[in-house]
Amino acid sequence: MTQPKPLHFVTLLGSLRKGSLNGIVARALPELTPEGVTITPLGSIADVPLYDQDVQEQGFPAPVLAMAEQIRAADGLIIVTPEYNYSMPGGLKNALDWLSRVTPQPLAGKPVALQTASPGAIGGARAQYHLRQTLVFLDAFVLNKPEVMIGQAISKFDVEQAKLTDEPTRAYLTRQIEALAALVRQVAGNAGAEK
Amino acid sequence: MTQPKPLHFVTLLGSLRKGSLNGIVARALPELTPEGVTITPLGSIADVPLYDQDVQEQGFPAPVLAMAEQIRAADGLIIVTPEYNYSMPGGLKNALDWLSRVTPQPLAGKPVALQTASPGAIGGARAQYHLRQTLVFLDAFVLNKPEVMIGQAISKFDVEQAKLTDEPTRAYLTRQIEALAALVRQVAGNAGAEK
Amino acid sequence: MTQPKPLHFVTLLGSLRKGSLNGIVARALPELTPEGVTITPLGSIADVPLYDQDVQEQGFPAPVLAMAEQIRAADGLIIVTPEYNYSMPGGLKNALDWLSRVTPQPLAGKPVALQTASPGAIGGARAQYHLRQTLVFLDAFVLNKPEVMIGQAISKFDVEQAKLTDEPTRAYLTRQIEALAALVRQVAGNAGAEK
Amino acid sequence: MTQPKPLHFVTLLGSLRKGSLNGIVARALPELTPEGVTITPLGSIADVPLYDQDVQEQGFPAPVLAMAEQIRAADGLIIVTPEYNYSMPGGLKNALDWLSRVTPQPLAGKPVALQTASPGAIGGARAQYHLRQTLVFLDAFVLNKPEVMIGQAISKFDVEQAKLTDEPTRAYLTRQIEALAALVRQVAGNAGAEK
Repeated sequence: MTQPKPLHFVTLLGSLRKGSLNGIVARALPELTPEGVTITPLGSIADVPLYDQDVQEQGFPAPVLAMAEQIRAADGLIIVTPEYNYSMPGGLKNALDWLSRVTPQPLAGKPVALQTASPGAIGGARAQYHLRQTLVFLDAFVLNKPEVMIGQAISKFDVEQAKLTDEPTRAYLTRQIEALAALVRQVAGNAGAEK
Repeated sequence: MTQPKPLHFVTLLGSLRKGSLNGIVARALPELTPEGVTITPLGSIADVPLYDQDVQEQGFPAPVLAMAEQIRAADGLIIVTPEYNYSMPGGLKNALDWLSRVTPQPLAGKPVALQTASPGAIGGARAQYHLRQTLVFLDAFVLNKPEVMIGQAISKFDVEQAKLTDEPTRAYLTRQIEALAALVRQVAGNAGAEK
Repeated sequence: MTQPKPLHFVTLLGSLRKGSLNGIVARALPELTPEGVTITPLGSIADVPLYDQDVQEQGFPAPVLAMAEQIRAADGLIIVTPEYNYSMPGGLKNALDWLSRVTPQPLAGKPVALQTASPGAIGGARAQYHLRQTLVFLDAFVLNKPEVMIGQAISKFDVEQAKLTDEPTRAYLTRQIEALAALVRQVAGNAGAEK
Repeated sequence: MTQPKPLHFVTLLGSLRKGSLNGIVARALPELTPEGVTITPLGSIADVPLYDQDVQEQGFPAPVLAMAEQIRAADGLIIVTPEYNYSMPGGLKNALDWLSRVTPQPLAGKPVALQTASPGAIGGARAQYHLRQTLVFLDAFVLNKPEVMIGQAISKFDVEQAKLTDEPTRAYLTRQIEALAALVRQVAGNAGAEK
C-alpha cells in the first residue's frame, strides 16, 4: 500500500497580543498533527497595513504577497482567531481584504479550517459564521466538521507556561486536522496526483 | 409650539481610498440634513493602528479616544461603508474593535444608522447585517428602516466631480437622517430634556 | 412618587414537543416577573398552517389573527425557542412569516426579547442572530442585553418535574424581563402616556 | 475519450403558492441542464407537517422519508426559494429540520446549489447566507459560485405564461448547474467510480 502524499498547512492568526490564547493554540498545532502533515505559521497580520485601494494601485505590500504565496503553496489553511465584538477581528479581516485582491486569488479552491478560542461559553462561534460568509466570496472549501470553538478557554490553558494543556481539546484539534487532510485529499481528487 | 432640540450626528467612513463612493456619500450628508440636524465627520479609520491588547494596556491611541469622545457627544452615529468580501471592511471593524474597549463604551445606547454603497446589485447589504451583529454587542440602537443600500452605485454618481447626483438617492438619504432623528427623539424620551 | 404603568408581555414558543426545555422556560416566566409585569403565552405555533400566499388571499387563519392581536395589545414580546440546525425552527419562522403579512404589522415598533435554551454549550446563539435579522425587517425593537442563551441546559432543569431549577438562570431571566420593561418604558416615552 | 458519468439532481422548492416565481425557476431547470445532467423535483414542502420531536418518535412522516431517499439517491440538490423576512421561508426550514433528523443524514456530503428570486434588488441574498449556515450543520458541500440571486425578478418572467424569459438569467442558471456538476465530480473523486 502506498503512503498518502504528505500535506502542508499554514496558519493565520487573528490576534496580535503576545499572550493570546489563540496564539497558544496556533503554536500548539505543529505538535498535534497526524503523520504526514506539517504545519507552519504565516507572517503576522500586524505587518499588513490597513487596506487602501490607492495603495494597492502602487503595488501590494510585501507581507501580503508573501502570505498569498505561502497560502497558494500550501495544501490548506487554518485560521485561528479570537472573536471580537461578535465577529472576526478587524486586523484579521484586513489581511483577508488584501489577500482577496491578489491574483490569482490564493484562497480560491483552498481547503480551510477554522479555530476560535474565547473565555466565554460561546467559544467564538459568532466570528466563525462571519468568516464563513467571507470565505464564500473567496471561493474557499471551508471544512464543516468538526468545528473547533474552544469555550471557557482559560480553564484549558496553562497561561503562565503558554501551553494548551487540556487533553480532550488537544485530541479534538488533531481530529480537525485529520478532517482537513481528508477534505484536501477529497477535493484534490485525481488532480492531486498531477500536482 | 416649541422647536425640537437641535441634533448633531457624526459619520464614520469605512473606506480609505480618496475616490471612494462611500466617501462621496459621507461628504454629501451635511447638505442633505433636515432642519435642526448637523453632521460632521469623525477622524479617519486610517489613523487607528491595528488593535492589540498589549498596546491598549500602554494607553489608547489618541485617534481612538478622539473618536470615542465625539461619538459620546453626538446624538447619533452614521456608519458609511463599502462591503468587502461579504462583510465590513477590516479597517472599519478595527476602529470598532478599539472603540469597544473604551469606557464608558461610547456606542452604548447610541442611535446608529447604516449606509452602504457598492457597484453591484446588492448594495452592501451583507456588510450591514454583520455590522448589526457587532452593534448588538456594543449595545447600540441601530435604526431598522429605511435601510440605505445604494446598489449599482456608479450610475448614481458623477465620479469625476465626486458628487452624488442621483436625486432619488439623495432624497432617500434625507429620509433616513429624518428617521434617525426620530429614533434619537424616541429613545432619548423624557431623559432627553435633562441632558 | 407614582407607580410605573403596569406592563404586559406575551411569549411565543418555538418548540412543539411536550417536554421541551424551552417550553419549561416559557412557562416559568410568569413567576419570574418583577413587580408590575405580567406575562401570558400566545397560542401555539402548531396551530399555524404553512405559509402560502394563495391561502392568505382567501383570508388569514384565525390563529394568526389572534396572535397578531395579542402581540399588538401587549407591551412587549418574548420569543423562547430552541435552535434547530444553526437557525430558528421552521415552525417559529413560519409563524413569523404569517405575522409579517398582517396589517398593521403587529411587530412594528414592538420591544422584543429573545431566549434560547439548548443542550450544547452555545445555548442557541446561532438562532438568535438569525431571528434578529428577521426582526430588522419586521421593524421590532430587539433588546440587546442581557442575552439569554441557556447552554448545557439539561443540567439546569429538573426534567421529570418540568421545572427550571437553576437559581442563577432564574435570576438572570428576571433581569432580562426587567431590561425589557426598561426598554418598553424608554421607547414608549411620552407617547406611552397617551396610549 | 470516455463520457462523464451522467448526473441526477433534485430540486427543493421553498414556496407554496401556485404562481411562485421561484416555482417557475425550479420548473425551468430541467430544460436548462447541460448534457449528461437530469433534474427532477422533490415532493412539496406543503406535505411536511410542522416538526415535532414527539411525532418523530412515533415515526417519520412518509413525505420526509421520500424526500430523504430521493436526496440520498441524487448526485446533488438545488434549493430554489424566495426570501421571507430576511431569511429562508419557515416552510423550507421546516422540511430541512425534519430531513436533519433522518439517519443516515441525507445531506451529509451532498453537493448543494442555492437559487433565490425576489422582486427587490437584493434577489434573496439574505436567505442564502442563512441557508448556508444551516447547511454547515447538515455537512453539505454548498457551491460557492456562481451565486444565483435573481433580483428585480418580475421583469425577467412572463408571469402570465409562467415562463422565465430572460435569456441572460437562463444562461446563468445553466452555468450554475454546470458548476454544480463540476463540484459533484470534484468531491466524488475516485470514490465516484465505485458508487
